[in-house]
Amino acid sequence: MATVKNGQVVLKGYIEGAPKKDDMEMKIGTVELKAPKGSGALLVKNLYLSCDPYMRARMRNFHGSYIQPFVPGQPIEGFGVAKVLDSDNPNFKPGDFISGFTCWEEYSLIHNTSQLRKIQPDDSIPLSYHLGLLGIAPFLRNLLCMPGFTAYAGFYEICSPKKGECVFVSAASGAVGQLVGQLAKLHGCYVVGSAGSSQKVDLLKNKLGFDEAFNYKEETDLDAALKRYFPQGIDIYFDNVGGAMLDAALLNMQVHGRIAVCGMVSLHSYSDPKGIHNLFCLVTKRIKMQGFLQSDYMHKFPQFLEHVTDSYKQGKIVYIEDMTEGLETAPAAFVGLFSGKNIGKQVVCVARE
Amino acid sequence: MATVKNGQVVLKGYIEGAPKKDDMEMKIGTVELKAPKGSGALLVKNLYLSCDPYMRARMRNFHGSYIQPFVPGQPIEGFGVAKVLDSDNPNFKPGDFISGFTCWEEYSLIHNTSQLRKIQPDDSIPLSYHLGLLGIAPFLRNLLCMPGFTAYAGFYEICSPKKGECVFVSAASGAVGQLVGQLAKLHGCYVVGSAGSSQKVDLLKNKLGFDEAFNYKEETDLDAALKRYFPQGIDIYFDNVGGAMLDAALLNMQVHGRIAVCGMVSLHSYSDPKGIHNLFCLVTKRIKMQGFLQSDYMHKFPQFLEHVTDSYKQGKIVYIEDMTEGLETAPAAFVGLFSGKNIGKQVVCVARE
Repeated sequence: MATVKNGQVVLKGYIEGAPKKDDMEMKIGTVELKAPKGSGALLVKNLYLSCDPYMRARMRNFHGSYIQPFVPGQPIEGFGVAKVLDSDNPNFKPGDFISGFTCWEEYSLIHNTSQLRKIQPDDSIPLSYHLGLLGIAPFLRNLLCMPGFTAYAGFYEICSPKKGECVFVSAASGAVGQLVGQLAKLHGCYVVGSAGSSQKVDLLKNKLGFDEAFNYKEETDLDAALKRYFPQGIDIYFDNVGGAMLDAALLNMQVHGRIAVCGMVSLHSYSDPKGIHNLFCLVTKRIKMQGFLQSDYMHKFPQFLEHVTDSYKQGKIVYIEDMTEGLETAPAAFVGLFSGKNIGKQVVCVARE
Repeated sequence: MATVKNGQVVLKGYIEGAPKKDDMEMKIGTVELKAPKGSGALLVKNLYLSCDPYMRARMRNFHGSYIQPFVPGQPIEGFGVAKVLDSDNPNFKPGDFISGFTCWEEYSLIHNTSQLRKIQPDDSIPLSYHLGLLGIAPFLRNLLCMPGFTAYAGFYEICSPKKGECVFVSAASGAVGQLVGQLAKLHGCYVVGSAGSSQKVDLLKNKLGFDEAFNYKEETDLDAALKRYFPQGIDIYFDNVGGAMLDAALLNMQVHGRIAVCGMVSLHSYSDPKGIHNLFCLVTKRIKMQGFLQSDYMHKFPQFLEHVTDSYKQGKIVYIEDMTEGLETAPAAFVGLFSGKNIGKQVVCVARE
């Protein structure tokens, strides 16, 4: 098989604080389009790469987390959709589409195939949606990068929603939030979302079907904003941001409220050292606050896939992606996550097929 | 009936920050030892008064809490054990012992009798234990002042303990903590407590049966202290203090750990404005953190009473009280709660019968 050039996005070195574009660089290597005999590996062509907030934690030289750091000088590892070009593994054949852990490069040799999921192409669902709406890695434990199933597991398993309850979603137009809000609406809840621009607020109200939405950057008093939208209090808060918004939400929870802590962006943020001050509300209002990873709820995955796929095909759910074109756009796309530049799930298209 | 002198402890005015002894003062009034006809009230002689951290919240001029503020110039209201001297209520007769809301004075006229519980005197259990070990007010909602049942409901209902799990209790020699630790030991758990003096640590290890205990004031690094006692991590943290200890515990929780937030002292404390910083652990370790009030679990009360009474009579549970003598000692006893002066449940003995 041919040896070809292989563009790669490489981490230059470990970082502190917010990631910058030039913490990463493009390199051009070469690759033989072949899965070596006896390796059990796959040689894949990467099509779509997922930009996820948790990846920031892997850019730090910290080994105590639930996931290992990246290796400087090596391509960044991430969730992607790819096409198999060559296989030394009986479970995969050339032409198969897969989702799972790959690298930020044009072609990857994947040895750890137990993490991969074969995708059945379906003309009515874009391939890239397997990074967002349907995103899941069934054999991956302890990872927070599957927005669709994270939204589903968090909303149904942690929040125990009841029809008519009042639901607040932060980072509501993001990869997870947009699905949480739509699931809550389908469940008969009143749903309000917060986001960081008027364009996102517009999307929430006019495209994603939220009852109300507001731009948190225009609110000088988050507590007052929440009181405006939830005069009776919040039954369920799906927290994607932590920080000051969590503190304000605590003040506005209803008795026996539930807070699902997803917080993919803010948990990795070190820009807000102020801490959380309103945890006394946990007692006075008997609130349950729970962190979760979708991987603990894998037994619900088939149910999720059926529910969300059907709802999408029936037009009851939409999904918004922010797709950039070309591997070289990946560093900027990733960095944009942390300033809220993306509108919807951030994906990089490396190649369309 | 006779008119007699009635010593009272009165709140002078609303406070901010930590309570001081002279925020209260003794007054001598008079009282007719009679329940007026048609009032439905009881005239009681107060025997034992309970000093509880939540009472501090009632000394502030803040009406948004789960309990109303005290009235300046009036005797302080609190949980107590009393003897009925006169009754205009068919459910009570002179000579009955009751527990429930009364006032910090020698004699009280109690109109709201629906909150009271009749005590069956039992020679093997001190009357004052109805403020601590067996403390409960069955008709009171939203109140955090019944140590025994709070410990029971929090440990069994919120923490879902399993035999062999590792349990950490803060303020472990306090009114709630000492029972939590003993219930955990009876349940087959490994139990470590923290307290604020070597005398308390000694009690925990040698009288209350904790596996280990430490004086948090002697630890410069709470995280390191917890790692020493819980090399495998904490499965259950029964949090009575919040603040820096909660932050350190978060770092040391096991995956799927549970935190019961009782926090009677620290939640009302405004001396630590640093906030909580390690909530990211909720996600990475999928922790459930839940506030609770014992009043949500009243259906478990008969079970509690039987379990704890039997265990006490069989010598499997002990209970430590810190009792001061005389109504005039009440202000100092109450203030001492906030500097950790009390050892065990703080009670004021007004009269023995």
